Amino acid sequence: MKALRYSDHLELTNTPFEARDGEALVRVLFAGICNTDLEIVKGYAGFHGTLGHEFVGRVESGAPGELIGKRVVGEINAGCGRCELCGSRDPRHCKDRTVLGIKGRDGAFAEFLSLPAANLLAVPDAISDEQAVFIEPLAAALNIREQVELSSGMRVGIIGDGKLAQLIVLAVAPTGCDLTVIGKHRERLALAERGGANDARLFSERAQVGALDVVIEASGSAAGLQAAIEMTRPRGTVVLKTTHHGATTVEMSPVVVNELTIIGSRCGRFETAIEFLLRRKPDFTSFISERFDLDFGVEAFKRAAEPGVLKVLLKMTS
Amino acid sequence: MKALRYSDHLELTNTPFEARDGEALVRVLFAGICNTDLEIVKGYAGFHGTLGHEFVGRVESGAPGELIGKRVVGEINAGCGRCELCGSRDPRHCKDRTVLGIKGRDGAFAEFLSLPAANLLAVPDAISDEQAVFIEPLAAALNIREQVELSSGMRVGIIGDGKLAQLIVLAVAPTGCDLTVIGKHRERLALAERGGANDARLFSERAQVGALDVVIEASGSAAGLQAAIEMTRPRGTVVLKTTHHGATTVEMSPVVVNELTIIGSRCGRFETAIEFLLRRKPDFTSFISERFDLDFGVEAFKRAAEPGVLKVLLKMTS
Repeated sequence: MKALRYSDHLELTNTPFEARDGEALVRVLFAGICNTDLEIVKGYAGFHGTLGHEFVGRVESGAPGELIGKRVVGEINAGCGRCELCGSRDPRHCKDRTVLGIKGRDGAFAEFLSLPAANLLAVPDAISDEQAVFIEPLAAALNIREQVELSSGMRVGIIGDGKLAQLIVLAVAPTGCDLTVIGKHRERLALAERGGANDARLFSERAQVGALDVVIEASGSAAGLQAAIEMTRPRGTVVLKTTHHGATTVEMSPVVVNELTIIGSRCGRFETAIEFLLRRKPDFTSFISERFDLDFGVEAFKRAAEPGVLKVLLKMTS
Repeated sequence: MKALRYSDHLELTNTPFEARDGEALVRVLFAGICNTDLEIVKGYAGFHGTLGHEFVGRVESGAPGELIGKRVVGEINAGCGRCELCGSRDPRHCKDRTVLGIKGRDGAFAEFLSLPAANLLAVPDAISDEQAVFIEPLAAALNIREQVELSSGMRVGIIGDGKLAQLIVLAVAPTGCDLTVIGKHRERLALAERGGANDARLFSERAQVGALDVVIEASGSAAGLQAAIEMTRPRGTVVLKTTHHGATTVEMSPVVVNELTIIGSRCGRFETAIEFLLRRKPDFTSFISERFDLDFGVEAFKRAAEPGVLKVLLKMTS
C-alpha cells in the first residue's frame, strides 16, 4: 500500500498494510493537509509514521454490516475503551489514546487506514467527498461554541485568516456575534467577509479594533497569541485554537492585570459538524487551493506550506 | 513628608504632601512590601513615584465623620467614578483607574497617602495593625475562590512557597480541597503544611504529584507557569496569580492539547478578607520576616528581595 510517511523526512512508501485487530479497514478516498501535519514534519508531537487525520473513505471490512461499503469519516482519537472518559463515549482526553496520524497510530495519507468501528460515522449522500474532508477541522472549529457562550451582539475577534480561521468564521458567524477577523492577506480577509465576518482587517491595523469580549487565536504564531491577549477586554476570553512546535514567548502580565481567561480548544464532535453541513451547506470551493494525487504527496506538502495557500487535498485513488 | 520613591532608582525623599482634591488624607501606620513592588523597581508597569499598596493607616481628614481618626485599609484601585464598572462599585477594571503605588497614584510607603474616601474600610478592633497589612494580599488570594469553584476532594496545587503562596494556602485550604504545595524551600513548605496544605513537595519532586484539577501559579516564574500547565489534568484550570516584568517563554501546546483553562487573577474584595480574618484568626507571625522603620526603606527592599524572605513590613512612625 502507498503511504506518505514521516520519520526524519517525509516520503512516499509502498508496504503491506492491514487493519489493527478488531478494527475497521477503510479505503481512503480524499484527505486534507492540516497545519498540524505541517508542524509534525517540523518536529511537533514527536510523531513518526503515516501522517494525516482529515479524511473521507469507504469501509472495506471489520465494521458492523450497515457500515460496510459506506462512505465514512472517523473521529481521530481512539481511547483505551476502559477509562471513565471512554465510558462516557468521549475518548478525546483518554490518557492512553492514540490519535490518527498524530500519536501512536498511522494516519490517512495512504490507500487504507485502520480505526475502531465505533469511531466511524456514515457520511450522508448530500455531503460530497470534498466537503466531507472538512468535517474534522469544522468539528474543531465548532468545538469553540461548546466551550464559550457566544451570542448576538458580542464582540468577537479571530486572529488568522488561514484554513482553520476561515472554518471558524463559518462556525461562529451564525451566533450573531459582531465578528472581526485580523489577518495578513487581503484576499483571505475578503474570503472571511464573504464567510460572515462583519469586519476584516490587516494585522497592522489591529489597534483600531478596540477591546473585544472574545478573541480566538488561529494564526499559530506567538505574535498572534500576544495580539489576542492585548485585544481582549478585561475579564474577557482568549480561545487558543492552534498548536505549534516549540516554546512561545509572550508577555503574560495583561492576562493577570486584566484577569483574562485563556481556553485551549482542540477536537470537536463530528455529529455536530455533519449537522452543520447539512443545514448550512457551506461552499468550500474557495477554501481548496489545490488537489494532488497521493503519488505527489511530498510536493503537496511543499505546496501546503507556501504562504497564502489554503487547503491542499490528497486524492488517494486515481 | 518622608516617602520611599522610585524613578530610575529607589530613594527616601522628604517633600511636602497633601491629599488630592476631594480625597481623604490617611496617616500610614504600617505597610508591606509585595513582589509587585520588587518587580516595579525592575521596570514592571513603568511606574514612577511613591511605591506601596499594602497598608493600614488612620484617617486624618477628607472623609465622612465616622471615619475620621479611625484605622483603615484601602482598596487600591481608584476608578473614574463615571463608567459602568465604577457604577457597579467595582473599579478594579475601570480603564481610567489609578492604582495606589502602581499606576498614576503615589503609594503607601510614606508618612501619608491620599485615596478617595469610598476606597477606605474601617478595620475592626479585633484585627491588629500587622494583621491589617495582610488584608490587601489576602483579598487577592481569596479572589481565586470567586473565580474558580473549589470544593471538597478536588485536587488543587499551588506552585510557589513565598508570601503570596502562603496566603493562598490559608485562603484555599478551608474549601476542603486536597491541597499540594510545590516550592523550593523546605522550611517554607513546612509552613504551608501548618497553614493547611495536605502535602508539600520540592519543585524537583513535582512529577510524583500527578494530574491536578486546579493549579495556582504563585511563583512568578516562567518555570512555575510551565509546571502549572504540565501538572493540570485535561480540561483542568490553571490560575495565574503573579505578574512579572518582561516576556515569559512557555510551551503552550499542552494548553491546546489538554484543553486547559488559564485564568488570570488580580485584586480581591477587602470585605471578604476582613470577614475571613475575623472568623479564622490566622496567625501571621511566621509570615513576617522583618520590620524596618521607613527611614531604612531602601535596606528593607534589599532584604525583601533576598531568597527565602517572606513579608517585610515598614513602620511609618517611630
